[in-house]
Amino acid sequence: MSLLFQEGAVVLFQGDSITDCGRDRRSGDHLGWGYAMMAASWFSALYPERRVTFLNRGVSGDRTKDLVARWEEDCIALKPDWVSILIGINDTWRRYDSGDPTPLEEFERNYRRLLTEVKERLGAGLILCEPFLLPVPEDRKAWREDLDPKIQVVRSLAREFGAYYVPFDGIFAQAAARTSPEYWAPDGVHPSLAGHALMARAWLRTVGVPV
Amino acid sequence: MSLLFQEGAVVLFQGDSITDCGRDRRSGDHLGWGYAMMAASWFSALYPERRVTFLNRGVSGDRTKDLVARWEEDCIALKPDWVSILIGINDTWRRYDSGDPTPLEEFERNYRRLLTEVKERLGAGLILCEPFLLPVPEDRKAWREDLDPKIQVVRSLAREFGAYYVPFDGIFAQAAARTSPEYWAPDGVHPSLAGHALMARAWLRTVGVPV
Amino acid sequence: MSLLFQEGAVVLFQGDSITDCGRDRRSGDHLGWGYAMMAASWFSALYPERRVTFLNRGVSGDRTKDLVARWEEDCIALKPDWVSILIGINDTWRRYDSGDPTPLEEFERNYRRLLTEVKERLGAGLILCEPFLLPVPEDRKAWREDLDPKIQVVRSLAREFGAYYVPFDGIFAQAAARTSPEYWAPDGVHPSLAGHALMARAWLRTVGVPV
Amino acid sequence: MSLLFQEGAVVLFQGDSITDCGRDRRSGDHLGWGYAMMAASWFSALYPERRVTFLNRGVSGDRTKDLVARWEEDCIALKPDWVSILIGINDTWRRYDSGDPTPLEEFERNYRRLLTEVKERLGAGLILCEPFLLPVPEDRKAWREDLDPKIQVVRSLAREFGAYYVPFDGIFAQAAARTSPEYWAPDGVHPSLAGHALMARAWLRTVGVPV
Amino acid sequence: MSLLFQEGAVVLFQGDSITDCGRDRRSGDHLGWGYAMMAASWFSALYPERRVTFLNRGVSGDRTKDLVARWEEDCIALKPDWVSILIGINDTWRRYDSGDPTPLEEFERNYRRLLTEVKERLGAGLILCEPFLLPVPEDRKAWREDLDPKIQVVRSLAREFGAYYVPFDGIFAQAAARTSPEYWAPDGVHPSLAGHALMARAWLRTVGVPV
Amino acid sequence: MSLLFQEGAVVLFQGDSITDCGRDRRSGDHLGWGYAMMAASWFSALYPERRVTFLNRGVSGDRTKDLVARWEEDCIALKPDWVSILIGINDTWRRYDSGDPTPLEEFERNYRRLLTEVKERLGAGLILCEPFLLPVPEDRKAWREDLDPKIQVVRSLAREFGAYYVPFDGIFAQAAARTSPEYWAPDGVHPSLAGHALMARAWLRTVGVPV
Amino acid sequence: MSLLFQEGAVVLFQGDSITDCGRDRRSGDHLGWGYAMMAASWFSALYPERRVTFLNRGVSGDRTKDLVARWEEDCIALKPDWVSILIGINDTWRRYDSGDPTPLEEFERNYRRLLTEVKERLGAGLILCEPFLLPVPEDRKAWREDLDPKIQVVRSLAREFGAYYVPFDGIFAQAAARTSPEYWAPDGVHPSLAGHALMARAWLRTVGVPV
Amino acid sequence: MSLLFQEGAVVLFQGDSITDCGRDRRSGDHLGWGYAMMAASWFSALYPERRVTFLNRGVSGDRTKDLVARWEEDCIALKPDWVSILIGINDTWRRYDSGDPTPLEEFERNYRRLLTEVKERLGAGLILCEPFLLPVPEDRKAWREDLDPKIQVVRSLAREFGAYYVPFDGIFAQAAARTSPEYWAPDGVHPSLAGHALMARAWLRTVGVPV
Repeated sequence: MSLLFQEGAVVLFQGDSITDCGRDRRSGDHLGWGYAMMAASWFSALYPERRVTFLNRGVSGDRTKDLVARWEEDCIALKPDWVSILIGINDTWRRYDSGDPTPLEEFERNYRRLLTEVKERLGAGLILCEPFLLPVPEDRKAWREDLDPKIQVVRSLAREFGAYYVPFDGIFAQAAARTSPEYWAPDGVHPSLAGHALMARAWLRTVGVPV
Repeated sequence: MSLLFQEGAVVLFQGDSITDCGRDRRSGDHLGWGYAMMAASWFSALYPERRVTFLNRGVSGDRTKDLVARWEEDCIALKPDWVSILIGINDTWRRYDSGDPTPLEEFERNYRRLLTEVKERLGAGLILCEPFLLPVPEDRKAWREDLDPKIQVVRSLAREFGAYYVPFDGIFAQAAARTSPEYWAPDGVHPSLAGHALMARAWLRTVGVPV
Repeated sequence: MSLLFQEGAVVLFQGDSITDCGRDRRSGDHLGWGYAMMAASWFSALYPERRVTFLNRGVSGDRTKDLVARWEEDCIALKPDWVSILIGINDTWRRYDSGDPTPLEEFERNYRRLLTEVKERLGAGLILCEPFLLPVPEDRKAWREDLDPKIQVVRSLAREFGAYYVPFDGIFAQAAARTSPEYWAPDGVHPSLAGHALMARAWLRTVGVPV
Repeated sequence: MSLLFQEGAVVLFQGDSITDCGRDRRSGDHLGWGYAMMAASWFSALYPERRVTFLNRGVSGDRTKDLVARWEEDCIALKPDWVSILIGINDTWRRYDSGDPTPLEEFERNYRRLLTEVKERLGAGLILCEPFLLPVPEDRKAWREDLDPKIQVVRSLAREFGAYYVPFDGIFAQAAARTSPEYWAPDGVHPSLAGHALMARAWLRTVGVPV
Repeated sequence: MSLLFQEGAVVLFQGDSITDCGRDRRSGDHLGWGYAMMAASWFSALYPERRVTFLNRGVSGDRTKDLVARWEEDCIALKPDWVSILIGINDTWRRYDSGDPTPLEEFERNYRRLLTEVKERLGAGLILCEPFLLPVPEDRKAWREDLDPKIQVVRSLAREFGAYYVPFDGIFAQAAARTSPEYWAPDGVHPSLAGHALMARAWLRTVGVPV
Repeated sequence: MSLLFQEGAVVLFQGDSITDCGRDRRSGDHLGWGYAMMAASWFSALYPERRVTFLNRGVSGDRTKDLVARWEEDCIALKPDWVSILIGINDTWRRYDSGDPTPLEEFERNYRRLLTEVKERLGAGLILCEPFLLPVPEDRKAWREDLDPKIQVVRSLAREFGAYYVPFDGIFAQAAARTSPEYWAPDGVHPSLAGHALMARAWLRTVGVPV
Repeated sequence: MSLLFQEGAVVLFQGDSITDCGRDRRSGDHLGWGYAMMAASWFSALYPERRVTFLNRGVSGDRTKDLVARWEEDCIALKPDWVSILIGINDTWRRYDSGDPTPLEEFERNYRRLLTEVKERLGAGLILCEPFLLPVPEDRKAWREDLDPKIQVVRSLAREFGAYYVPFDGIFAQAAARTSPEYWAPDGVHPSLAGHALMARAWLRTVGVPV
Repeated sequence: MSLLFQEGAVVLFQGDSITDCGRDRRSGDHLGWGYAMMAASWFSALYPERRVTFLNRGVSGDRTKDLVARWEEDCIALKPDWVSILIGINDTWRRYDSGDPTPLEEFERNYRRLLTEVKERLGAGLILCEPFLLPVPEDRKAWREDLDPKIQVVRSLAREFGAYYVPFDGIFAQAAARTSPEYWAPDGVHPSLAGHALMARAWLRTVGVPV
């Protein structure tokens, strides 16, 4: 498989805290410290001559509706050539810690709107990342009732929009089976550094980097 | 990774119709025509000198409770060295076509009982296969409410018992994103031949065969 | 060697029970559980983007004359781009179990008619598979008197029609020398699963798949 | 696969004209100019430090009965560590050009006697080579009636004695399908030089030389 | 070269802001977002079974004297098996922005004291990282007067203590020659993400990871 | 290096007994049993689709003057595309066993005439093979006085005519240093089979066959 | 990376004693015995068909001003296609042994003049080699005050002129850390043979030779 | 083939000007600038941890008798573990430029004495290098009368003493055939740098370095 990103391409990471990872909002090109940054950094060190620009507009705590609200500014206006999205775990989490759920229809409506605008207004390529969860601490197990249907929605949209798909939830489950979930994501939601590196490698392979 | 199965090993495939695949019940060593048979055949052609015996006791329509009921006869009595289990989709399906659900607790109790007996009475190695579903036809999407928690139970048990884990659901989702779900499983449950071959390759790699 | 089958190609397996292997006649694209299915499945999982269609019209018990009788319907009408044929063991077997032999001239006339129609009416590519027999049980040895000349006819036609040729009889003989014939074909005629996988690998290599 | 022949081993080629190939009878270590010589020469140039001795006692025109008659002198007395045998085509040929057939039972009795003596008196390793025939000129086709059963006997003995087996007849048939039989054996019996080299490569691979 | 770090090893990164990279001081195992974190994350994802613990005690703004001051607490007390040190650029920088230079003798005395304690009290392995600087903005060029002698001290100590040495300054100079310094370190001191990834790869190769 | 011989090429081996090796003069395409035949056979088995024709017109006992005498008939008339020549040892030998030397000037005049005709009348490619000698039996050592200058002539002509050159004398000397000369050429002149295979491999490599 | 030097290219090594290495001034194509000669020799043995001409005009004791003085004659007049320069250590050394320093501005003015002429009058490619120093004997350490700023000038010019850059100083530091500086350069300035070979390999890799 | 030289080994190059190549006699470890130095340098840069010591005692103009005269001092006293000898061209040359020939018997007696002492007094390993000559200028051709018998003596001694043998004369002849002799040795005796590198590579391969 050849490299997806051509010379001068702009690649946008969108998502929540897992993508955000403490990025500095005052800086338009700060990438945080997570998988997005790791993947972008590795790519940039290996292919300096491609001069690919990576942007991160992940916002901690964001849900799909937040992406919708800031899509004009945080996606369309940036004119990316590729958009990578990892969103959904907070649509789930808020239901459990704040009693503020995102109904599945709304989740799908939000997510589809994001993709539709990317396709219709930008014609950009899409990389959809599977939301994931590991069962630590114990209460995370209850969240599956809300998360699992949302994973299905993302898969469904990936097929509908012909997106590349990164099946993070299964990758984490397989890695955790013979090690432990805490090793990969201590709170079940936010990957450890090993977890972010695991994600970065899967993401890089999806876009054609031989790592 | 080296080959898991030693010379003379007995490897048992257990499961439902996806494992069964039309195997002839009158013959104790018939393997059906699905992933179990493909994986076993390929292994046997490559390593005849290992003289590994593969058994299939998948029974079409089976649920976890059915495995429990026939475990003494269809697992313990066979004295396998390795047990590979793919079960759960019928625990889900019966709820929708027959109004006969398997509560999650019962699913887990059943599944744990299977594993406990394997470990305590046989000391055999375990390979747990993730139940999976693709969204064709449309009604399958509704099944996720029931299936997804069961997938979580299998992952949880894999961690608990130190089993090898094959994340079939994510593998199918990724493959389907840029082709189509029907290509891999026309009715969403039963893999096409391409789907079974996809499973056989993932399974063989899990046990150390370089394919 | 590059892959023989181009995108969208239709590949037809024709033959008897070894090809048939329990395929469901009610379904036009059922492939049975034997070498034809294994080869087709493996190919389809490796090259989904080629969208190759594999058809199996093997009919258990068939002899060359049966292929001739159903060639219009079961070959020409299907408009295959490639035709793979494995036929002949029943032309032999019927002589011994039913006193109903197929004289060699008739065998050749039948077989040539099949190939001529493929070439003249379809212009399709040809893959001829050598009929084979292993000497279990003992009575199979007597069949060689009838089978061996038919193998010669198939080789002769392969040369005449410039077909690819898969020398199954020698491959089985070599494999059986240091293992045992029963391991590869318990009744000498119908391959074991290991035998079918051995065939699938040889067939796939013949058409350019690196397995 | 590792090299079969240890340092100082003595390897004896036995057979008829295809093995003989004009070897000088006055010289005990002359190897003729055919596959036996080619294989031995290549091996000796690659592994001089093994100091393997190759002997050829192929005698043009020989049949199994001739091998029996000279086995004490031309095999046992030479104390080989490995014996490679290619015999049978003259048992067939004499029937057609001289009306002097070798009945199958006699062929098998002769051949078994050779192998029994090798095993019981020498304990040497065995490499059995399949007799072969290509259909040029036309009359050779008639010989198959006699040759094919003899090929079956050789395969049967290979299994019985746990010998390595080189399936020459299928190898020639496959090579001839898309070139022409004359290229590989102009008179159908005696290989061309290309045919002898094809044999030498198959034989060397059988004994573990990576060519 | 084999992997330096054995199972259960504790690896400590020490240094200044380039190592620190925003690590959370409240968390003893936070690694920041720079080369230290990238290298540690990649290692942990590739070798989970080694269960290596990586610690970062880089402190933004630190000079060698600061390391000395907190060495007992931030190194010795942590009982690392390997210590990787990247220090010195602030010993230089303070001279220019605050008129607070670190004389070379003091720099060396401080640095040697760090290494001596590691060797004598811990017996741990050492990885010394070359301080580096790229000439952007222009004023950085003036700093070389102060930095270059300090680089010599680090090299000298690496030889004295038999440490592994990572020549970052040359690596950056080579990379910058045909791209641009800003690409790798926009302010000449703090690497871009591409710069940190370049460092992580060089560091990982030094400890035996094939990246 | 790519294969020198194109499809349909005619390659002529010329020389003395080492090339001749008992070829049947009555047959225009007989190749003897030596290096010429081994190289030709191996090439033909590997590249049947090239349909290269190899001819041998080596004549035992021949000297350069004999080649000149029969060059019209045995080279030019055959219209080869490539000519490989190994001649000279008999120009030497006759001096010692018959008192019939070939003066060096005559040797060179003869050899140049051969090459000139090939170049001017055929425009064919040239492969010049170094005459060689091993010091067994002892008397061969005396022949060096005569042979060595002739080797120089061949090297000189190779440079003059831009021929490919195969340095057989050095290859044999190197092989013999740690084995023994007799192993490679029992009488010092005529290679053993191992010697011929050593030559065939060097010759094949020279024309671009990866052996 | 592909080979930088095309057929017939002229490559000029310029520098001081490290480049000079005892070359014979009376011979315009003498290359001395150092890295320049080793790199040129290795290249010429591997790629004779490129007919690349290597010239060495290194002059022992030279400083940048000496290069300027003889640039017309020793560079421009030679019309090289590529110019490789290693200069600077004597600009430093003279300051310490003769009280005759080269001010940095003069160093840079000299060096830029060299490069400007190469670019403007020849349009040739540039390979800039980093001056280097190892700390033996002890007094060399003092030279760093003068050398280090000059290294910065070379790096700066490499960026300005888009030259290939060989970071020798870091390469020597890394090699010396776990061996000893004397092994690579006994007097700290002039490499040992191992040091020259280390340089030759780095230089060859920079120009695309896979060593 | 594994590396011949163990840790701490002392390897002595002996010979004439081709080995000497301007080495500084005042320095016991100077290696000149030729093949000996190139091979030693490359080895030392690749395997610093072996700490192999290379010595060169080649003396320009030396003949075998000179080696004998200084063998006690220049070989035995140095206690080498391996001795590589390239001698003989001056035994030839002096005959032609000074009327001072070395009779063959004397050459052999001298050479054998060298080897005998190495074997009996040191037990060291031997690498014998073939003297060589290229035919430029023209008069060199006359020298062959004297040189060629001496080459035979070296080969004979290599066999007698079980030495490794480097067939330089053939290697140069082959290289020169399609380039030109001047490219490899402008005066026919002293290799060009390309020639020395060609020698160094052949020598390094002989002692097990993969170049």
